[in-house]
Amino acid sequence: MARIVKKFGGTSVGDIDRIRNVAKRVAKAVEEGHEVAVVVSAMAGTTNQLVQFCREAAPMHDAREYDTVVAAGEQITAGLLAICLQEMGVPARSFLGWQLPLHTNNVHGAARIEEIETEALEACFEGGRVAVCAGFQGIADDNRIATLGRGGSDTSAVALAAALKADRCDIYTDVDGVYTTDPRIVPKARKLEKVTYEEMLEMASLGAKVLQTRSVALAMTHGVRTQVLSSFEDKPGTLVVSEDEIVEQEVVSGIAYSRGEAKVTIVGLEDRPGQVSHLFAPLAEENLNVDMIVQSASEDGASTDVTFTVPEDDLKRTVKVLEDNKETMKFRDLVYRGNVCKVSVVGVGMRSHAGVAGTMFDTLADKGINIQVISTSEIKISVIIDAEYTELAVRALHTAYGLDKVEE
Amino acid sequence: MARIVKKFGGTSVGDIDRIRNVAKRVAKAVEEGHEVAVVVSAMAGTTNQLVQFCREAAPMHDAREYDTVVAAGEQITAGLLAICLQEMGVPARSFLGWQLPLHTNNVHGAARIEEIETEALEACFEGGRVAVCAGFQGIADDNRIATLGRGGSDTSAVALAAALKADRCDIYTDVDGVYTTDPRIVPKARKLEKVTYEEMLEMASLGAKVLQTRSVALAMTHGVRTQVLSSFEDKPGTLVVSEDEIVEQEVVSGIAYSRGEAKVTIVGLEDRPGQVSHLFAPLAEENLNVDMIVQSASEDGASTDVTFTVPEDDLKRTVKVLEDNKETMKFRDLVYRGNVCKVSVVGVGMRSHAGVAGTMFDTLADKGINIQVISTSEIKISVIIDAEYTELAVRALHTAYGLDKVEE
Repeated sequence: MARIVKKFGGTSVGDIDRIRNVAKRVAKAVEEGHEVAVVVSAMAGTTNQLVQFCREAAPMHDAREYDTVVAAGEQITAGLLAICLQEMGVPARSFLGWQLPLHTNNVHGAARIEEIETEALEACFEGGRVAVCAGFQGIADDNRIATLGRGGSDTSAVALAAALKADRCDIYTDVDGVYTTDPRIVPKARKLEKVTYEEMLEMASLGAKVLQTRSVALAMTHGVRTQVLSSFEDKPGTLVVSEDEIVEQEVVSGIAYSRGEAKVTIVGLEDRPGQVSHLFAPLAEENLNVDMIVQSASEDGASTDVTFTVPEDDLKRTVKVLEDNKETMKFRDLVYRGNVCKVSVVGVGMRSHAGVAGTMFDTLADKGINIQVISTSEIKISVIIDAEYTELAVRALHTAYGLDKVEE
Repeated sequence: MARIVKKFGGTSVGDIDRIRNVAKRVAKAVEEGHEVAVVVSAMAGTTNQLVQFCREAAPMHDAREYDTVVAAGEQITAGLLAICLQEMGVPARSFLGWQLPLHTNNVHGAARIEEIETEALEACFEGGRVAVCAGFQGIADDNRIATLGRGGSDTSAVALAAALKADRCDIYTDVDGVYTTDPRIVPKARKLEKVTYEEMLEMASLGAKVLQTRSVALAMTHGVRTQVLSSFEDKPGTLVVSEDEIVEQEVVSGIAYSRGEAKVTIVGLEDRPGQVSHLFAPLAEENLNVDMIVQSASEDGASTDVTFTVPEDDLKRTVKVLEDNKETMKFRDLVYRGNVCKVSVVGVGMRSHAGVAGTMFDTLADKGINIQVISTSEIKISVIIDAEYTELAVRALHTAYGLDKVEE
C-alpha cells in the first residue's frame, strides 16, 4: 500500500464525462489498495471566464475579491469529482482550501503556502475514503480565500504530498511525460523515464511547460517523487526525482527553447560600482522580469555594455522605463530587438563532463547559426539566436548530444 | 441613518452590467447615510447549470457535495459585486456563509438557519464598509457548506436583517411589488402599498411567487419589515409588515391562484380512528405534499370520503402510493383528476367581516363556475375549480371585492 497524491488539470476535468474518467483512474488506485488524495483544477475555461468577469467588473480589482471569485472554479470540480467517485462506490469527500485548512500568507492572488494541516485528511484516509481537494486555493490569516496564482494546482498537489508524506505525487496533464525536447519540432525526441528536479526546473522555466516551476522547486525542497503522466492514456510517465535515484546519468538530458524573447543592450554605461543596480531596480519596480544578464567591457575602457533578455511582450515597456531613466542610469545608447529565441542544453551530468559547451558552439557554427548571447549555469548552457533558426538549432543539438530515439 | 439589508436575485445580477447597476443602487443608499448589507443570489442560469452538473455526475448525489458545488454560484456574485462597489469608490467586502459564519443544521441541500454571528458584519459597518453576503449558504456543524434550498437567498436576507436588527429588508425582484392579483390576468390589478405577513404568506404559498414562503414566515416571526421592489425601476414597492402597521385594513387584499393542481378522492374509507393517518403517512414518506384535505361522510354512514389536492406533477406517484397501500388503507375506490386550479381570496380583514365567503360563492355561481372543493382558514377562502375557468374566476372575484384599480 502506498499513499499517493494525484493532480488533474483543467483539460482532464473539462466536462462530466472527463471527470468520470478521472474517477475511474482514482478508483483503480483505490482498488490496488492505495490511500489517495486527489487535487483538481477548475474545469477548462472556467477560470478564464471568472478572471474575465473580474476584469469586466474593474480593470484593477481587490485581490481578495478576485480570490473569492476564481476559487469557485476548483470548488465546483472538487464536489463533482467526489459525487462521481461515490457513484462508482468509492467513498470520497471534497475539501476546500479553508476546510483542510491549507494556510497561506496574505499575498492574495499569488499566495505562498505556509502550512497544511493534515488531521482532516488523515481521518479521511482512516475512514477508507478518498480526499478530493480543490487545488489552487488556501486560506489566509484574514480568514479569506487566497489563491496561489495561475497554475497553482500543481503547487497545491506537491505541497499536499509533502505534508502527507506521500510516496508519490502524480501530475496528470495533456502530455504523457517529459521529453528530451519538443516532439513537435523533433519527431525523434524521446520520453525520459526519469529526470532530476534540477533539470526539470531548468526545462520548466525555459518554456517546456509541463510542470509549474514553483511546484518543481517545492518537490525538490521536500523530496517529493513527482510523476508527470497523461490523463488520457494509461501508461507510465516521467518521474521527477533526486539525482541519487538516477543511476546512470546522461550528460545532457534535454534541449529546451523559449521563443518570444527580446534582447536589450545598454551601450556605454558608466563603469562605476552600483551603476548596474540603478539599471535594474526601476525595471523590477515595473514587474519586468529580466533574464540572461551579460556584462562586457566597452572599447573605451571607461564604460561597459550590459545585455539582457526580456519576454518580447515586455520589450516596449522595458525600453520606455530605460529611456525615462536615462539620466540617472547614465548610459550612451540603447540597442534592442525582438524575435530572438533562447535555446538551452540541460543536464546534471555536465557538471562532471568537459566539452559540453564546445559541442554546442561547434554544432551551431556548423549550421551557420550566429550566437548573440551566451549564459551558463552548473547544469545548463543557454544561447540567444535569431528566432528563425530555432527548429534547426534544436534538431541539430538533439542529434549532437545523442538524444535521438533509436529506431527499433 | 438606517440599517438596511438589500437582496438581489439572479436576474438582477445576471451579468456584469447588471451587477454594476446593483452597485449603483447600493451606492445611493450608502450616500444617503445608511449602513447596508447586501445579499446576492447566483447569476441567472448559474445555479441551474451547477445543479445540472451534479445530476449528470450522479442522479442521486451526496447533498454535502451538491452544496459545495452549487454554493459556488453565490460566491462568485458576492466577489464581483464587492469589486464593482469598490470601483465606484464604495468600500465593500464579500462574506461567504462560512465567513460570517451563518450556522445551519446538518440537513444539507435544505438546511435551516440556526444562528448568524454578526461580529464580522458589525466590524464591517464600523469600518464604513458595505457587507456583500453570498445568499443561500451557511456552514453546518460538520464544517461543510450547507445550502438553504432553492430560493434560499430571500431567507438569508430576512434572517440577516433579523440578526442585524435592521430597520428594513429590501427584496429586489423582477416585479415591482405585490399586486391584488396577477396583472397578466387582470390588467386592473393594483399594487399594494402594504400587506401583512399573514396575507403575504397565503399569497406566496398560493403561487404568487414574489417572496419565498419561508422568508415571509421568518420575517413575521422576527418582525422584519420587508419591502418587495423592482431591481430595474427606481420606485417604492410593497411593504410586508405586521397588522398593526396597517391602519385601515381592507377586507380582502388579494386574489391568488395556483394552477397545476390535481384532486384525489378516496371513496369509502373505513370510518375508524387513525384511518386517516394510515392514508397520509405513506404519502409523506414519499415526500408527496398534500394540500386542502376535506373529509365528508359517505352515504352509507360506515365509511367516509377524503378529498385532497396535490401538485399535478405528483399525481401519478400519489395514485401509485395509494394503490400500493390499498389493503392497509382500507378504502373502496380512488377517483382523481388533474387540470384543476385553486383560487383563493386572502385578507386579514375577513376575520372581522361576515359574508366574505358568501360573496365568493355567489360570484362564482353567477359565472356558472362549479366549486369542487372548499377549504377555509382565518384569513383565506380557497376553492378548487376547473382550470379552464381560472381567468374568469380571478377577474370576477377581483371586481366583486372592489379591488379593481380606479381609472384616473
